[in-house]
Amino acid sequence: VAIVLGANQYGKAEIRVLRVSRGTPAADQHDITDLSVSVTLAGDMASAHLTGDNAAVLTTDAQKNTVFAFAGSRGVGQIEDFGLLLARHFVDTHPTVTRARVSITQYPWDRIGATGHSFARSGGEVRTATVTYDGTDAWAVCGLEDLTVLNSAGSEFWGFVKDPYTTLPETTDRILATAVSARWRHASADAGASPDHWGKSYGEARRLLLEAFADTHSFSLQQTLYEMGRRVLAARPEIAEMRLALPNKHHYAVDLSGFGVDSDNEVFYAADRPYGLIEGTVTRDDAPPPGLAW
Amino acid sequence: VAIVLGANQYGKAEIRVLRVSRGTPAADQHDITDLSVSVTLAGDMASAHLTGDNAAVLTTDAQKNTVFAFAGSRGVGQIEDFGLLLARHFVDTHPTVTRARVSITQYPWDRIGATGHSFARSGGEVRTATVTYDGTDAWAVCGLEDLTVLNSAGSEFWGFVKDPYTTLPETTDRILATAVSARWRHASADAGASPDHWGKSYGEARRLLLEAFADTHSFSLQQTLYEMGRRVLAARPEIAEMRLALPNKHHYAVDLSGFGVDSDNEVFYAADRPYGLIEGTVTRDDAPPPGLAW
Amino acid sequence: VAIVLGANQYGKAEIRVLRVSRGTPAADQHDITDLSVSVTLAGDMASAHLTGDNAAVLTTDAQKNTVFAFAGSRGVGQIEDFGLLLARHFVDTHPTVTRARVSITQYPWDRIGATGHSFARSGGEVRTATVTYDGTDAWAVCGLEDLTVLNSAGSEFWGFVKDPYTTLPETTDRILATAVSARWRHASADAGASPDHWGKSYGEARRLLLEAFADTHSFSLQQTLYEMGRRVLAARPEIAEMRLALPNKHHYAVDLSGFGVDSDNEVFYAADRPYGLIEGTVTRDDAPPPGLAW
Amino acid sequence: VAIVLGANQYGKAEIRVLRVSRGTPAADQHDITDLSVSVTLAGDMASAHLTGDNAAVLTTDAQKNTVFAFAGSRGVGQIEDFGLLLARHFVDTHPTVTRARVSITQYPWDRIGATGHSFARSGGEVRTATVTYDGTDAWAVCGLEDLTVLNSAGSEFWGFVKDPYTTLPETTDRILATAVSARWRHASADAGASPDHWGKSYGEARRLLLEAFADTHSFSLQQTLYEMGRRVLAARPEIAEMRLALPNKHHYAVDLSGFGVDSDNEVFYAADRPYGLIEGTVTRDDAPPPGLAW
Repeated sequence: VAIVLGANQYGKAEIRVLRVSRGTPAADQHDITDLSVSVTLAGDMASAHLTGDNAAVLTTDAQKNTVFAFAGSRGVGQIEDFGLLLARHFVDTHPTVTRARVSITQYPWDRIGATGHSFARSGGEVRTATVTYDGTDAWAVCGLEDLTVLNSAGSEFWGFVKDPYTTLPETTDRILATAVSARWRHASADAGASPDHWGKSYGEARRLLLEAFADTHSFSLQQTLYEMGRRVLAARPEIAEMRLALPNKHHYAVDLSGFGVDSDNEVFYAADRPYGLIEGTVTRDDAPPPGLAW
Repeated sequence: VAIVLGANQYGKAEIRVLRVSRGTPAADQHDITDLSVSVTLAGDMASAHLTGDNAAVLTTDAQKNTVFAFAGSRGVGQIEDFGLLLARHFVDTHPTVTRARVSITQYPWDRIGATGHSFARSGGEVRTATVTYDGTDAWAVCGLEDLTVLNSAGSEFWGFVKDPYTTLPETTDRILATAVSARWRHASADAGASPDHWGKSYGEARRLLLEAFADTHSFSLQQTLYEMGRRVLAARPEIAEMRLALPNKHHYAVDLSGFGVDSDNEVFYAADRPYGLIEGTVTRDDAPPPGLAW
Repeated sequence: VAIVLGANQYGKAEIRVLRVSRGTPAADQHDITDLSVSVTLAGDMASAHLTGDNAAVLTTDAQKNTVFAFAGSRGVGQIEDFGLLLARHFVDTHPTVTRARVSITQYPWDRIGATGHSFARSGGEVRTATVTYDGTDAWAVCGLEDLTVLNSAGSEFWGFVKDPYTTLPETTDRILATAVSARWRHASADAGASPDHWGKSYGEARRLLLEAFADTHSFSLQQTLYEMGRRVLAARPEIAEMRLALPNKHHYAVDLSGFGVDSDNEVFYAADRPYGLIEGTVTRDDAPPPGLAW
Repeated sequence: VAIVLGANQYGKAEIRVLRVSRGTPAADQHDITDLSVSVTLAGDMASAHLTGDNAAVLTTDAQKNTVFAFAGSRGVGQIEDFGLLLARHFVDTHPTVTRARVSITQYPWDRIGATGHSFARSGGEVRTATVTYDGTDAWAVCGLEDLTVLNSAGSEFWGFVKDPYTTLPETTDRILATAVSARWRHASADAGASPDHWGKSYGEARRLLLEAFADTHSFSLQQTLYEMGRRVLAARPEIAEMRLALPNKHHYAVDLSGFGVDSDNEVFYAADRPYGLIEGTVTRDDAPPPGLAW
């Protein structure tokens, strides 16, 4: 019996980079891209673990410098392209690195004022991308986090199991609220010829998720989850699989009858914890295997 | 020499209430108001402190129930009006309560889809109001938090003190970014005849703050702060005083020359800590005294 | 081609329960157990997703009630035992539930004063357990989070790859600091005859992790990670596998020479982001297969 | 009527500094001091606000450098002394600075292992100090944050106001839990001849706060608050005033009778929001005036 090193990886997490693009379309018009980039590398790092010999280790500091340098020399563009560029660089130029994963969170900004270089952050929602490259194949998982949505009608919940610990009343009218965490795997990490392949796909997926949440008459958050995934897959052939995690942000109707107030499901207490958490995958029956995508 | 009780207050903090208004304009059209309400009461509470006699204490649980009940019976409307209603209730109906302060944070939502009852949270920015009532007078302080803004041009910083610890280079081109925390005192807590007095005033103050941030060519964050306050006061006679706290969200240009990258102030590292913090007040020379407003 | 439901699960997250045990050893001596319990169930939930038929769904509210009821009727004891009790209950009494996972975070408290019923929270570190049951087999993964440790000597870092983006100086004397996140899989979820099987194992694992961190002369955080896992496995035969995630909480020496201060590695800036993140597994070559443990 | 600049201040916030003291008592024995330092300066900064002329502005970057340099050249010692050193420096060497306030949070660490240079963070609780200097006088306010404590017996709550919104049952047995936030003003900022004046005073104040919380049979959190302050003032003549903010961390007994469980106040739900918040001051009737202390 021996003690052995198992799976391992390392990298630099949460590299916060702001890229300003100047002079487009006019000299005083700027674009900004605001990112948190996390790099994870894997390879033959046994010596570092077993003997402290770092000959195979590309420092996480160098990984950070690489992110800044590539942001400078080539710009960022779509985060999936930027991630792939970085992942390919790490594997292709470092013999000890056999797999690179780059996860990027993009913070959205809106323009304000008339200056062309003034911006305001547009909310808690963020766009995400995780790309993985193993020297041969590449995978792209796109997504979003913290898209908080609420339906104040069109949600029911009844017909569930009644066991001795079940006290929840059935309801045909409840608040349905969640903070959408969605990640979707593309069938291919190849963007093709379109420079806005990823951006357009992201925008449409986001739009379809919102649309499905809003207009699904819901009998359970599970049903809404499935419909959100189904709607995206039905319309976007480039997307092979959708994974959703939906916390049930409970809003409990407050009984005001004791205070002489006749309130018909109008006042709700927004609870913090505990919360339901619904997680599910929607996919195609002919989706390519996920490989190292997740 | 004796040990004595000094200033004291108590209340229920962060009551999370969602109010749904149904049937306006049509039966399937909803409006929602999403709040965190904090109540603070003061009065003659010496017995509770000194002997544990609670005869003067309105429980914080009852304060919570009152918030829910009033939200149900009268709706919420503008948060300043709702806060004043609550503050007056606590002082006017409880002889031991001599001062009530109600602080409200409102979370904004946008409509999504076509259902009329579907919403998405619109960002990290929140609207705030703090109203205070002492049985005779009332005060209203309005505000906003976490309005994150950035200018990628039009900001300089030079001509500052050079002491032996000063190493910061002077610059005529830097990123200026901050998360605006602003509170402004109204000259009167009386809304007058307009049902949207507070909402209109808030919207204009917010617009002016953004406009001033964007189009002020800045030589220091202090200058931008003053201009933001000045612009609001100049245009809104109902506002007597503006207090701003502006963290300087430092974005440091990354020197890429060592990597063979010719980058002219295009790649920035967004730092977390430490950060500059600029705080200032802009007021009128004939502003009414603040009383208990703050 | 069809769109299909893939892997899915659901449950109640972060059920905050405090259990007071009264009268042990004397009537005025209390013990407290402070937990956050998360339940995750999986099974045949296709109907809930596809048609909104909830006949197979045990509500997350009932899951919460079950946690409270079991805490009352049987007490909590060791969190691994409590988790297994719950997991077995959900699978064994609900035909539609085929797998239950219960994850528990325990917040530690110390006694204060002489009353026997007064306590103070003892820090940010927490103990964790995740148990899984599929109707036949059970697995137990124990762990801890947020154990923040620092060595101010005995840490070097040199001999790493030098690529064009490498600017980090080699060092034979650096601060090594991390917030230990560790999870270890037991070879068996059976506690045997000892009522404190889990507690004793946890205490020893924690002690060994600290000891290994402190007395390993480190040439890389990878090396320290491996030694921490190795030390636990070498001494604790009941543990089959250790997974560690160690953020490198960078402390950068501040160069004070420009200020006339002769400081030899004595003043450090504690950085927030970015940070290195080192993840690794240490296991035995004859460890039983992990099954559904993770 | 004119728009004018009112009160203003600025500074660098949350400078994270770790000071290692080497060679005491032996060469391989280290001490560490882990701080977050915030500097706030005030003075005649009108030009910076009104015209963007920064001739009076000591940059917040230089403030940061000063903190690092002083930590290097003189060590830190007690945080009150370090804060006073910095505050005096800023006012006494900069004619435009008329008031400096330095707020320090100290993170506690325990020794681990036998190396003499290995440490573990000891919990969420932190020690604080805020010192203020105006060129003539100095003030010191000491404190602690996030000392979370709980009594599982010895707490009652009854005899309170019953208004139409009061539904809380009276109780003679409840959980009393809070996260102590305490700040106490010293009668003098002069440490006298004792090198551990501040440390000893802090340790005793902390001990007395814990002792008072534990052994006060409580009829309200207000009563416990007052007794905590009173106990410190009675025993520590150097402390003139104590301000406490105590959130009531509600633990609600769960009614398990519907589940056939006979539980006598043994299972509690730990709620997040809303929470009661009790704030109060305990002082001496001959306390020196607070001046600019707070």
